[in-house]
Amino acid sequence: MSDRHFYLEDIPLEEATGRLWEALRKIGKDQPLAGEAVPLAAALGRVTAEGHFAQRSSPHYHAAAMDGYAVRSADTNEATETRPLQLRLQSQAYPVNTGDPLPPTTDAVIMIEDVQHPDSETIEIRAAITPRQHVRLMGEDMVTTELVLPSNHVLRPVDLGALAGCGYAVATVRRRPRVIIIPTGNELVLPDQAPEAGQITEYNSLVLGAQIQQAGGVARVMDIVADDLAQLRIAIEAALEGVPDLILVLSGSSAGSRDFTANAIQEMGRLLVHGVAVRPGHPVIMGMVQTIPIIGVPGYPVSAALTGELLIEPLLARWLGLSADYATKPRTQAIMTRKLTSPIGDDDFVRVTLAQVGERLLAAPLNRGAGIITSLVRADGLAHIPRFSEGVDMGQVVEVQLYHPLALIQQTILAMGSHDPMLDLLGQFIANTYPTRRLTSANVGSMGGLVALRRHEAHLAGIHLLDPNTGTYNLPYIRQHLKDETVTVVTFAHREQGLMVTAGNPLGVRSWDDLPRCRYVNRQRGAGTRLLLDYELEQHGIDSNSIQGYEHEEYTHLAVAAAVASGVADVGLGVRSAALAMRLDFISVGWERYDLVIPEPHLAHVEPLLAVLRNATFQQTLAAQPGYDTRETGQFIAVT
Amino acid sequence: MSDRHFYLEDIPLEEATGRLWEALRKIGKDQPLAGEAVPLAAALGRVTAEGHFAQRSSPHYHAAAMDGYAVRSADTNEATETRPLQLRLQSQAYPVNTGDPLPPTTDAVIMIEDVQHPDSETIEIRAAITPRQHVRLMGEDMVTTELVLPSNHVLRPVDLGALAGCGYAVATVRRRPRVIIIPTGNELVLPDQAPEAGQITEYNSLVLGAQIQQAGGVARVMDIVADDLAQLRIAIEAALEGVPDLILVLSGSSAGSRDFTANAIQEMGRLLVHGVAVRPGHPVIMGMVQTIPIIGVPGYPVSAALTGELLIEPLLARWLGLSADYATKPRTQAIMTRKLTSPIGDDDFVRVTLAQVGERLLAAPLNRGAGIITSLVRADGLAHIPRFSEGVDMGQVVEVQLYHPLALIQQTILAMGSHDPMLDLLGQFIANTYPTRRLTSANVGSMGGLVALRRHEAHLAGIHLLDPNTGTYNLPYIRQHLKDETVTVVTFAHREQGLMVTAGNPLGVRSWDDLPRCRYVNRQRGAGTRLLLDYELEQHGIDSNSIQGYEHEEYTHLAVAAAVASGVADVGLGVRSAALAMRLDFISVGWERYDLVIPEPHLAHVEPLLAVLRNATFQQTLAAQPGYDTRETGQFIAVT
Repeated sequence: MSDRHFYLEDIPLEEATGRLWEALRKIGKDQPLAGEAVPLAAALGRVTAEGHFAQRSSPHYHAAAMDGYAVRSADTNEATETRPLQLRLQSQAYPVNTGDPLPPTTDAVIMIEDVQHPDSETIEIRAAITPRQHVRLMGEDMVTTELVLPSNHVLRPVDLGALAGCGYAVATVRRRPRVIIIPTGNELVLPDQAPEAGQITEYNSLVLGAQIQQAGGVARVMDIVADDLAQLRIAIEAALEGVPDLILVLSGSSAGSRDFTANAIQEMGRLLVHGVAVRPGHPVIMGMVQTIPIIGVPGYPVSAALTGELLIEPLLARWLGLSADYATKPRTQAIMTRKLTSPIGDDDFVRVTLAQVGERLLAAPLNRGAGIITSLVRADGLAHIPRFSEGVDMGQVVEVQLYHPLALIQQTILAMGSHDPMLDLLGQFIANTYPTRRLTSANVGSMGGLVALRRHEAHLAGIHLLDPNTGTYNLPYIRQHLKDETVTVVTFAHREQGLMVTAGNPLGVRSWDDLPRCRYVNRQRGAGTRLLLDYELEQHGIDSNSIQGYEHEEYTHLAVAAAVASGVADVGLGVRSAALAMRLDFISVGWERYDLVIPEPHLAHVEPLLAVLRNATFQQTLAAQPGYDTRETGQFIAVT
Repeated sequence: MSDRHFYLEDIPLEEATGRLWEALRKIGKDQPLAGEAVPLAAALGRVTAEGHFAQRSSPHYHAAAMDGYAVRSADTNEATETRPLQLRLQSQAYPVNTGDPLPPTTDAVIMIEDVQHPDSETIEIRAAITPRQHVRLMGEDMVTTELVLPSNHVLRPVDLGALAGCGYAVATVRRRPRVIIIPTGNELVLPDQAPEAGQITEYNSLVLGAQIQQAGGVARVMDIVADDLAQLRIAIEAALEGVPDLILVLSGSSAGSRDFTANAIQEMGRLLVHGVAVRPGHPVIMGMVQTIPIIGVPGYPVSAALTGELLIEPLLARWLGLSADYATKPRTQAIMTRKLTSPIGDDDFVRVTLAQVGERLLAAPLNRGAGIITSLVRADGLAHIPRFSEGVDMGQVVEVQLYHPLALIQQTILAMGSHDPMLDLLGQFIANTYPTRRLTSANVGSMGGLVALRRHEAHLAGIHLLDPNTGTYNLPYIRQHLKDETVTVVTFAHREQGLMVTAGNPLGVRSWDDLPRCRYVNRQRGAGTRLLLDYELEQHGIDSNSIQGYEHEEYTHLAVAAAVASGVADVGLGVRSAALAMRLDFISVGWERYDLVIPEPHLAHVEPLLAVLRNATFQQTLAAQPGYDTRETGQFIAVT
């Protein structure tokens, strides 16, 4: 709680990398790494360290390009269709197969198909042959001394073939940059250990190690080091003995009482940067210890992964002689579906999902928390909100670095609306049946789904909206909110809603009337489940103000169940499968119809989803889930 | 020369792959391969074989999101700026660091910055705290049972982190498809052996092995097998014992007397396809031996590599549960710079270089020979001319599959015109100094270069054109042929031209007058060197019809030198460096000025090239080459 030695700076990204590069330049480490000889069979993906010039021509002799007979073209001048010419074997004509060297004095090949009456002594031809016909001249492909591959070239399969073809058995490629990773933190445990409360699984070394591997480097991960300055210094000393090109210290890079990376670097070498003006990833450290650069990587997983992408991969690319740009992914422009604010002094990197809805490529921001690794897993790209911008408005065009090929993204089916855990099952079936198609779901609640359809921001919406006046589901809301659209309504499933309580139901919850004496966990405004609660509260004459936790909003059934399971709430409303997943007791309050609403222009695009809905195996799998009834699954309810 | 058992069929590509897939379907081998458990640290790039659902929530407990004090929010309701509230440590407030679990009964964290007068017993606060403030709720990132990664997903660095974060130490990924490669051919030698005439280096196994590795498979290459049916059968038997997913037999797939693959398959199993309607790559064989699919791959290197791309990579992708499309590269559209004819019955794949010249992305076809591996090395992409098309016209838009990112291609500097071996040197310097910039040269001769500039098909042209009337170089031609363009003319170098003859000059060549008694090798029409010859022949009163080999045209100095070195010609005209490279004698005929012509709109684009031309190290390196004089290198000669 004390001894805060540092305050974070706000150094712009380019200046921060510039400082490190300048420090490297002074000791000659800004140059691409040296070359090493690697057998061709092991050289795929390596980067040439020098130009590779043909050591031998290819072909290295004049070669027959066809099966047939090698001849002197001058001997054949008299041959015509009406006056065939006889050539004597072994003095005027020599049988050759494709690839054979031309016998001395011959300069052309007659295809076997063009030869008449071959016997053991002669062949007959009926046309003159031009010089070099059906001959692969020496050097046709590569001529000795010719440049075949430049330096700084990433070796592909065909490159290996070309090198072998002109006399190489080994390639001279840049040695791989060596990176040593030191994870730090008292709270860390390895992935194969079960963490206690307060412990977390150390996986940043796994992510950064894989990024380094992908970028052409070699990573070695050291044992986890406790939050202790002396132990960290010992670990860094040990890393230095491995003579790496780069040391990464994971976590401990901020300015808290357990953050020792900056102290260690300052004591052992030189601190160049402490705090970079990027979000997420702000508390990055850069320094030099002896002649080895060292980077302190922030501990939150999204910050760590983006530090790898933005700072470490480009550094490795430069050491490999590749452009730093080489490490960047393809880009595109997309339309932001939500307003976003952004700190004016920072380069802000926002994970987004992308979908092509009609003519527009839409970017929807994902959870911006630095602890949410799944926001990177689910991201189709990274939107860059530059420094000196305060954010982007809804509908504004943003630059997005792509994590997937645009062609695949354009095939994504984007569902917005109510959350149902079984949408994952639907997505799995779609992916298995149509490998290029993916289902992406955004949980914005049933009302949010209808709004998204009205704004043409989704291909379909999942909704379960009980109309209090008619007691029917969905159609009244569709008619009211999508007046100007032609939509098809297809049933996903009937599903069972209920009150989820701690296993054993310690508070003895039986019905809605018990809610005022419990801590409740609610769904967000606009969710069908929220509307169901409000409807039932009104039916039972319960004031929502009397419900403790009514304002505690979660966005999914599973998140509500998790809140109850963790003890932060006593009861929440949700589907049976969520209660089951979190081993909660479930007090059923009834069944509801969950429908998919598909605007007419997107019917063709979502056809794979409709096909899966009607698939017998899918229906059986869904029906086997507790709390789901598939009697109408896949059926068209209405076209409005 | 006899015993041709087979005639090649012309089966359309889709039908051919369909036959193999159908044969696999019948024995259940059209399904993705089974899963195997792989530790996360080794799982980068592998493909998930099943959905991975969270085994543990993340966080798996309610965690402090800030350093500070955990409290019950309800205890803080009374605190205001004017009426501070004291909370007792260890009963009302508990010190926590980021990541610590919340003590039981607490539900919020006060940041340390918001706490006044902390002492050993109490803290003071001046504002109420809302529930769950600065708390990462259990399951905020992932909730137990939630789908984290679907099946058929290629694992990226962040995916490994997410899996570790929700309880996995190993991932279940598809096993790698195993491929056994059998190279065949009496003429083959290994890359580390020096081939005799008639022998060729076997490198198709290297190319296909690397393609398989890149596609996620494992390739094992067997020893080279002679062209002998019995030996091939023994090799296939041996391969079958390895229980591979696929066997490849390299070469021997055509219908010649030494082509045994089809016989072997027919004797040992079932021949499904012999001849696919694609160019290059026509003589492809597909069959089944026992339950193992077997593909006969044509021997010409371009055919072999394209068979890998078009047939084998998609097959592996399907076995990995990926779309066959996954194996295809991004595409773009480009404008063809030349007319191309194409066999109407075949899918024709033409290697092209691409360059962005002004507004247009241009595709220039490379050598279409199936033996020219460098055409694949140099290609920026593969243009597809579909079946039922007879070709494309100049200026027609073609679909191109990209081998490089479009963003890099757009930075290429495209030079068309005269060939000079030292353009390779220039390209090397540019690539080393500007890693994203490349110089691509097309050898179309000096006149061809001026034509390309007039058509706006190149960024610059290299020319050396002697004007017979004035005895000066280049400017008269530029004024005549580029009347409507503003161009800058910069000198590349002065260089020495001469007659190249076999070492020792056995025919005693001394001057132009000796040419009629020699076999000459010429340059193509429009080449400056060709014009120089014609000028000198006229000066010396020699009729070109008297020159044997006058019609033998090569496109580069090195190709001319290679023709002389190989004995197919006695003498050719070219630069000294080419003679030196091929160890020929060189009879100097004088010096000429080789200029670069740059239209005004492309000056900015080619600035890196101009900077290298003026670079002292480059000039010294160029001047050190025999036959080059750099006294005017990099100087502006004129703007016209």
